[in-house]
Amino acid sequence: MSNPSSTSSGSSGSTSFDLPRFLADQRNIINKSLAGIIEREFDDSRLCRAMSYSLMAPGKRLRPILCLAAAETVECSDIRSDIGFPPFHDAMVTAACAIEMVHTYSLIHDDLPAMDNDELRRGQPTCHVKFDEATAILAGDALLTLAFETLSSQRVLAAVVQPDILLQIIGILSRAAGYKGMIEGQVQDMIAEGKTLDLESLKRMHSLKTGALISASITIGALLGGATPDQIRHLDTYARHIGLAFQVADDILNVEGDPDKMGKSVRTDRDRNKSTFPGIIGLEPSKRFADELINNALQAIKVFGTKADALSALASYVISRKR
Amino acid sequence: MSNPSSTSSGSSGSTSFDLPRFLADQRNIINKSLAGIIEREFDDSRLCRAMSYSLMAPGKRLRPILCLAAAETVECSDIRSDIGFPPFHDAMVTAACAIEMVHTYSLIHDDLPAMDNDELRRGQPTCHVKFDEATAILAGDALLTLAFETLSSQRVLAAVVQPDILLQIIGILSRAAGYKGMIEGQVQDMIAEGKTLDLESLKRMHSLKTGALISASITIGALLGGATPDQIRHLDTYARHIGLAFQVADDILNVEGDPDKMGKSVRTDRDRNKSTFPGIIGLEPSKRFADELINNALQAIKVFGTKADALSALASYVISRKR
Repeated sequence: MSNPSSTSSGSSGSTSFDLPRFLADQRNIINKSLAGIIEREFDDSRLCRAMSYSLMAPGKRLRPILCLAAAETVECSDIRSDIGFPPFHDAMVTAACAIEMVHTYSLIHDDLPAMDNDELRRGQPTCHVKFDEATAILAGDALLTLAFETLSSQRVLAAVVQPDILLQIIGILSRAAGYKGMIEGQVQDMIAEGKTLDLESLKRMHSLKTGALISASITIGALLGGATPDQIRHLDTYARHIGLAFQVADDILNVEGDPDKMGKSVRTDRDRNKSTFPGIIGLEPSKRFADELINNALQAIKVFGTKADALSALASYVISRKR
Repeated sequence: MSNPSSTSSGSSGSTSFDLPRFLADQRNIINKSLAGIIEREFDDSRLCRAMSYSLMAPGKRLRPILCLAAAETVECSDIRSDIGFPPFHDAMVTAACAIEMVHTYSLIHDDLPAMDNDELRRGQPTCHVKFDEATAILAGDALLTLAFETLSSQRVLAAVVQPDILLQIIGILSRAAGYKGMIEGQVQDMIAEGKTLDLESLKRMHSLKTGALISASITIGALLGGATPDQIRHLDTYARHIGLAFQVADDILNVEGDPDKMGKSVRTDRDRNKSTFPGIIGLEPSKRFADELINNALQAIKVFGTKADALSALASYVISRKR
């Protein structure tokens, strides 16, 4: 278990944790690393431009930030897994970027005309609107593939992470993104359109569609940080609760949100006759449900003390975004 | 270098190699392994049915067969890489199946209305015709993801293949399938539609679209078989030549072929105004070009003696399919 008195985030306790600054710093780190990959490896082809367009659109970077925060939470004293050790930090950020590639691919494909047919994402035209449908399908495919290329082949990772851990990480990411995870969630979401789901089915759909990748991000960070199985169990409980809270909050935002601030269309759920938490249990009970989920998430990481300051702050952020 | 007198295929020399029987046996092995994965892991969801539909459609299984044949060609005496050693053979077949998953995903996506808009593949309706467009996109995504899950997580692989070799294999497959390989080839193919490419551009496009995954299949097999860098270089020369020959033969078949035997639409290249080898250099010169490529491929693997019987026979098969 980690020592609660030594937080590497520099915070002096959860009450004084500067979340806006933390988010800005972490986003900056992720964006710089993604830009570096693009700068070093992409060319000026239409495909690379489409990949870069979607990858560098102003996203929250929630999943890679959660990955880094989970690593920090379990950080052990082994120098090779000390996130302050620059080569190790670079490796972790690179792995976090691979997660963002998978997330971005899923957004590009979900937005396609044959799927959700969305025209606005991260405050700008969706990939198939900006380019064309074929390019968007292929840019998504390419980002998904690039995530696995990154995890398997980037020297910065191989330099400090053991091959068996990298294989485990690839396994976790592929399962979370795959046919029993995120993709099945998207299928269930489409099948549910126009139907009224019960609460349990809605939870199950979201635990696949959004929850699986959020959980994977946290487990991957934990593994990179050298977590014990016990620590991973606590973090997984945290992850499952914030994953669901994230989606409840998203549904609430879709009812109450401001499209200018959200960077995507709102009130689309009602238009599409989608089942939502406010639709099933009501708006105020949905807010209470989100709060309850966050409390459970916080409970699960109490054991880490102030080392979990970042994760604690992120839990609140998940439901307070633009609400 | 391998001992030419001990072929594990049981053939007594390239002149007597029974290719039809070899192909049938190898296809059977691949199909049984794919069916096993489906049986053990898929459920009855629409997504799994779509994945299974495309994966189990009667394909040539050329890429996994090349993978297995490459391993056999370089087979060294180390028991752990002896393809006759059952756990090792199972591992190799599993890796070969991952390659077929990537190939199948690429077919599903290439056939989509936004891409080539094909309605017939492997003798049956394409995935988006049989199911729907959204399901086809997601089934492709899921098969691509499953390939990496398979390579990273199947116990049968971890039992006999070192983690660093598995990471190398994931790297090779992701690069071949990715934005500098197969996907870029598909982009170039679409951009070229309606334009007249010169011979070099046509070769470059095909080396990406078809050649990259064929080369990767052979390199992956070679790595699993314990190949030396020298052996890999010879096999790579072979791979690049048969990869291009395969596409030249495909173009010839598209002019001369019988749709009933091919299981896909023919004469579509001319209808779509696609650049083809017969279109650029003529039909007979294309046939001579294909023969020349195969001769070069055979030359590159002479060094392996009769251990390369299967690869030699496969080289001829690549251009003689239904011609």
